[in-house]
Amino acid sequence: MQEIEHKFLVRSMDFLSEATEAYPIDQGYLHASPPTLRVRVRGEQGFLTIKGGSDKSGLAREEYEYEIPLSDAKALLALCGPRRLTKTRYLVPYAGYTWEVDVFSGRHEGLILAELEVTSLDETFPLPPWVGDEVTGNPRYYNGWLAGEQ
Amino acid sequence: MQEIEHKFLVRSMDFLSEATEAYPIDQGYLHASPPTLRVRVRGEQGFLTIKGGSDKSGLAREEYEYEIPLSDAKALLALCGPRRLTKTRYLVPYAGYTWEVDVFSGRHEGLILAELEVTSLDETFPLPPWVGDEVTGNPRYYNGWLAGEQ
Repeated sequence: MQEIEHKFLVRSMDFLSEATEAYPIDQGYLHASPPTLRVRVRGEQGFLTIKGGSDKSGLAREEYEYEIPLSDAKALLALCGPRRLTKTRYLVPYAGYTWEVDVFSGRHEGLILAELEVTSLDETFPLPPWVGDEVTGNPRYYNGWLAGEQ
Repeated sequence: MQEIEHKFLVRSMDFLSEATEAYPIDQGYLHASPPTLRVRVRGEQGFLTIKGGSDKSGLAREEYEYEIPLSDAKALLALCGPRRLTKTRYLVPYAGYTWEVDVFSGRHEGLILAELEVTSLDETFPLPPWVGDEVTGNPRYYNGWLAGEQ
């Protein structure tokens, strides 16, 4: 199915006090170029995700995600070599939407990205005050790119 | 987990009369080099399979397989471009083992390969009379290679 997602830089930590949930994510890329093949351990769950390339807008990508056994996910992570990244994800409600805010650790410590999934390309939504510039479609901020960068 | 598999050429069609099951397989490769990412439609079921590179013997590969919705499998097949192949798989019992015999169609029409999965690297087994030369570990006969060959 198609995933339509906006991505923003984050300019203050004010989202923290509004977060309703937080969990650690450890993810890696078996293939970092499209179709990307990502394996993720989120808390005690494992997931395998395939994403296609972006459309022209940079907003939409084909995405297929499957839950897999945690032990498989850990074994597959080990096959990713250096193409790994870790982050803490916060779920932050704002004006009827739930934002996902990723606080990166490891070699991307200091980077924070906020993502919002919407259902159509032209959907508009209010921006929380802690959100900064939009970076949707900028490959520099793709997790696959971040995981590959040394 | 680890898959240990022997692969042989097939020198006669005598296996056909002993087959207990046959089903069409349509498969494609989203990534044809290791870790390979294969999508398969087998009858009315969809599967996603990741395989690592071979070990030195060519016998063993890491393999992770998951059933996925048939509609997803069909959509992912469409993303494989020309890296597709079709075959009919026959299950053929022989001396307590079940052989998988793949009769390729399309551009590999005429190719027939027999595979036997075993549980250890040094396991021995009787060869059915219709089996020819062993081609285990010969990349020329990897399905990923066959799918990519134009």
